[in-house]
Amino acid sequence: MDYLKLAKQYNTPFYIYDFDKIKERFLLLKEAFKARKSQIFYAVKANSNLSVLKLLVSLDSGFDCVSAGEIYRALKAGAKNYKIIFSGVGKSADELKYALEQNILYVNLESYEEMLLLEQIAKESQKIARISIRVNPNVDAKTHPYISTGLHENKFGVDIESAKKMYIYAKNSQFLDPVSVHFHIGSQILDISSIHEASVIVAKLVKELLVLKINIKFFDIGGGLGVCYKDEQEPNLYDYAQGILASLQGLDVCIGMEPGRFLVANAGEFITKVLYEKFNDKKRFVIVDGAMNDLLRPSLYSAYHEVKLLSENKEESLCDIVGGVCESGDFLAKDRKLAKTKAGDLIIVKSAGAYGFSMSSNYNTRNRVCELACENGMVRMIRKRESYEDQIALELDFLKD
Amino acid sequence: MDYLKLAKQYNTPFYIYDFDKIKERFLLLKEAFKARKSQIFYAVKANSNLSVLKLLVSLDSGFDCVSAGEIYRALKAGAKNYKIIFSGVGKSADELKYALEQNILYVNLESYEEMLLLEQIAKESQKIARISIRVNPNVDAKTHPYISTGLHENKFGVDIESAKKMYIYAKNSQFLDPVSVHFHIGSQILDISSIHEASVIVAKLVKELLVLKINIKFFDIGGGLGVCYKDEQEPNLYDYAQGILASLQGLDVCIGMEPGRFLVANAGEFITKVLYEKFNDKKRFVIVDGAMNDLLRPSLYSAYHEVKLLSENKEESLCDIVGGVCESGDFLAKDRKLAKTKAGDLIIVKSAGAYGFSMSSNYNTRNRVCELACENGMVRMIRKRESYEDQIALELDFLKD
Repeated sequence: MDYLKLAKQYNTPFYIYDFDKIKERFLLLKEAFKARKSQIFYAVKANSNLSVLKLLVSLDSGFDCVSAGEIYRALKAGAKNYKIIFSGVGKSADELKYALEQNILYVNLESYEEMLLLEQIAKESQKIARISIRVNPNVDAKTHPYISTGLHENKFGVDIESAKKMYIYAKNSQFLDPVSVHFHIGSQILDISSIHEASVIVAKLVKELLVLKINIKFFDIGGGLGVCYKDEQEPNLYDYAQGILASLQGLDVCIGMEPGRFLVANAGEFITKVLYEKFNDKKRFVIVDGAMNDLLRPSLYSAYHEVKLLSENKEESLCDIVGGVCESGDFLAKDRKLAKTKAGDLIIVKSAGAYGFSMSSNYNTRNRVCELACENGMVRMIRKRESYEDQIALELDFLKD
Repeated sequence: MDYLKLAKQYNTPFYIYDFDKIKERFLLLKEAFKARKSQIFYAVKANSNLSVLKLLVSLDSGFDCVSAGEIYRALKAGAKNYKIIFSGVGKSADELKYALEQNILYVNLESYEEMLLLEQIAKESQKIARISIRVNPNVDAKTHPYISTGLHENKFGVDIESAKKMYIYAKNSQFLDPVSVHFHIGSQILDISSIHEASVIVAKLVKELLVLKINIKFFDIGGGLGVCYKDEQEPNLYDYAQGILASLQGLDVCIGMEPGRFLVANAGEFITKVLYEKFNDKKRFVIVDGAMNDLLRPSLYSAYHEVKLLSENKEESLCDIVGGVCESGDFLAKDRKLAKTKAGDLIIVKSAGAYGFSMSSNYNTRNRVCELACENGMVRMIRKRESYEDQIALELDFLKD
């Protein structure tokens, strides 16, 4: 990749996504489950750029959406409504209405209260809402507390017993059709035994539901597969699939999957330019034009991203790579070995394809960066860099007296 | 305040700012320093809404900007260029050029390298750049590590000895004019003795510079005054000012101040609506339509905001108030006593006027909320709620094949 040429053409900072890599990961995951019917529902929140979604549409992916906005995006990108599911703990009445109007595949319910609201909305519009219930199997995903979701102390899902009651209620409702069960115990999971453990618990529920003549068609195993940011060993896909398949013996279900990070994290890079080097006391800082508003993960989760300096220099020393935002918490990488830089050198921040741009903000009135895609060796723009005019567009009218 | 009426008219969530309170705080601060010439430079990053800036323009405030975007905002709001200063560790060449073109009051330099770049840019455009140097006095502000900036281990400023060398260089440069000195040791400082300590150190530098015939006109004491989020005792403004004034005996300087949070934090509220209540095991969650993308401080800094439920119910129990974003880290408040809620109840998140909207994002494709102002008992909109169309505007063109 000729980063210097890209930096010249598009300016910095920018995100670039390798579409071939996303495709490759998609097909690997699909292949691992080939022994069964399966459907991938890409978790839009990881990277919701319309062109990324369009690529996934072309691969026959479905879409896991957590807001009406994400459903809107998926549809804009050409997704079929019957391949869209709607998850999340905070769906508003308006959002549920929108999902019903669009006749999406199903809504992943997170609580009894939400079920009642959805039923009422379905009744009002004389429609039948297909539902799934997110089961919280009380399994520890052993990951960062902010992205662990499978314990009862989290806000997500309902416990097995409550789920069973909800399924019975839904079966008896004129306006609800229980078609799926869902669990998702966390993100960036490296030890897949916890997913298998959850799968066994939830499969048992499905069998109990069968006895009650509630016929679950989708077994939605969520996402959460860990990826390599530094030196993590990614779960073996074959083992992952086999564990799930083993738990499903005797059940005729389509396996639903909700990968996000797994498909896009390692396919993306964040490219930023060195502005200055400075020493404070003996501490070395490399100040770059990208910042926490562009890539929040290091500040928010203390997340690690590999960085690579494009430079001929060889002699390395420790430094922090920091942005220009006025907070000490604004850093992209800490205590890294890096050769001496000069203004204009490029730094590649790796594995930035997931939860990078999608979490970016205008903090410090910084324009959100542009996004590029690389496909078949060709690079193109898939989102324009923001302008200051864009930033104030929704405020300007109110300046007049 | 009739929040229910506002929620009906503008929908939720929204921010609302009390302009009278901002004005009151501004005048209090100004008054505390009346024994001297002083100039307040509002720290735009805290809340950069154009109408907020316009209010401050009307009070004769200056503006402390940390990006070209913030300078652009200040100018749009009617600020005079000679009341704008430009701070921040990551100023790009383009930004410095823009600042020079706009002929702002001065640039707060953060490093030797930046000074050389600014000199070169000034030379190319045959202008003289007025400068300040941010001195890092190595004083511990005793605040959150993410917002503490006055220790050498931080990326900010230069040490006293380096600053002195830079002033001498600047004095001898044809294109630089050293007019100010600046320090800012952190945010949300409650123990002002650390600010006074820094002030003494920096005043000593100014006196040494006088001997070298470098005549500093502005003594810029930064911001960082702590405010009350819970039960913190706010610094006494009189004591604050007296300590600063005492350190300046014998010096003829105008005191510059860069308050941000101090002016706007307590003047703002974030209003959100209850969507659901749910129990997981015995843990109670109140799920609201506002989330971490709207107000990041609780997730990012574990920041505390007072919350108030508008309800007739009296019997309280502990709960977490969480948003709909798909992360366990998405919460607005934890372990708070709250009466039982029902869908539609409003929750007021207090002291949300600073680093609230300005840090908000579109994570989970959520529209950024609208902002309202209350002035003389009248409420008006100062920023429109975003739409999904707004969100995809910079991507849509690239969907075509």
